[in-house]
Amino acid sequence: MTLPHPDTDQINLSTVLAALGDETRLAIVGCLARCEDMGGLVCGQLGSLTSKTNLTYHVAKLREAGVINVRPEGTRRRVTLRRADLDSRFPGFFDSVIANAIDMPLVEMTLHELTLHEVTLPGVPARA
Amino acid sequence: MTLPHPDTDQINLSTVLAALGDETRLAIVGCLARCEDMGGLVCGQLGSLTSKTNLTYHVAKLREAGVINVRPEGTRRRVTLRRADLDSRFPGFFDSVIANAIDMPLVEMTLHELTLHEVTLPGVPARA
Repeated sequence: MTLPHPDTDQINLSTVLAALGDETRLAIVGCLARCEDMGGLVCGQLGSLTSKTNLTYHVAKLREAGVINVRPEGTRRRVTLRRADLDSRFPGFFDSVIANAIDMPLVEMTLHELTLHEVTLPGVPARA
Repeated sequence: MTLPHPDTDQINLSTVLAALGDETRLAIVGCLARCEDMGGLVCGQLGSLTSKTNLTYHVAKLREAGVINVRPEGTRRRVTLRRADLDSRFPGFFDSVIANAIDMPLVEMTLHELTLHEVTLPGVPARA
């Protein structure tokens, strides 16, 4: 099933800000930014951030605001940032959020958990 | 009465994002950015944005998040952006929000109303 995503020109700044205005959702964005080179993450890999129900809610909130893309991949859902779309809509804005969110303690913790438990996952930077 | 403001190092990114994630509050920030040269605005000058009760709520939300300073000035309250504080805390972030919010239709409308009704107010850019 393909999930609905707003078109680039429908993405609204105050909706994006509200979607980013939550510690867990900001950490999701930080994790995705750190994993962009490997094509994002699947939802399950963000499981240490919060409960499964909460994660579903937060991921939907970010998708509906136009911050992330969620694509079915077999039985999983792959999540990536809509960095180019946001950058064309609000130049400079998303990069500055990412730069300030990328090393949040919650991001470090989540990526550390991933390297501990998902040894088949290449490219996730290990905690220094 | 002096109102409480968070110290610079207590300003939290997700709280700031949540405070900015509202059309009216984003417009308040846009108006203040346009009026920085004249030392901000007093609350009453933002009256065309929303009702007085709503304005009080939105201004408090921005103050508590660390986005604006609210100082008593006689019987009025002067509102200014905490641009330097936010910039030292989250480099590049606030400038990029302002750049994208400064010409919102709601900002243009509010400043246009100001120039119509407050002829003693110098420095408010007139609508093009």
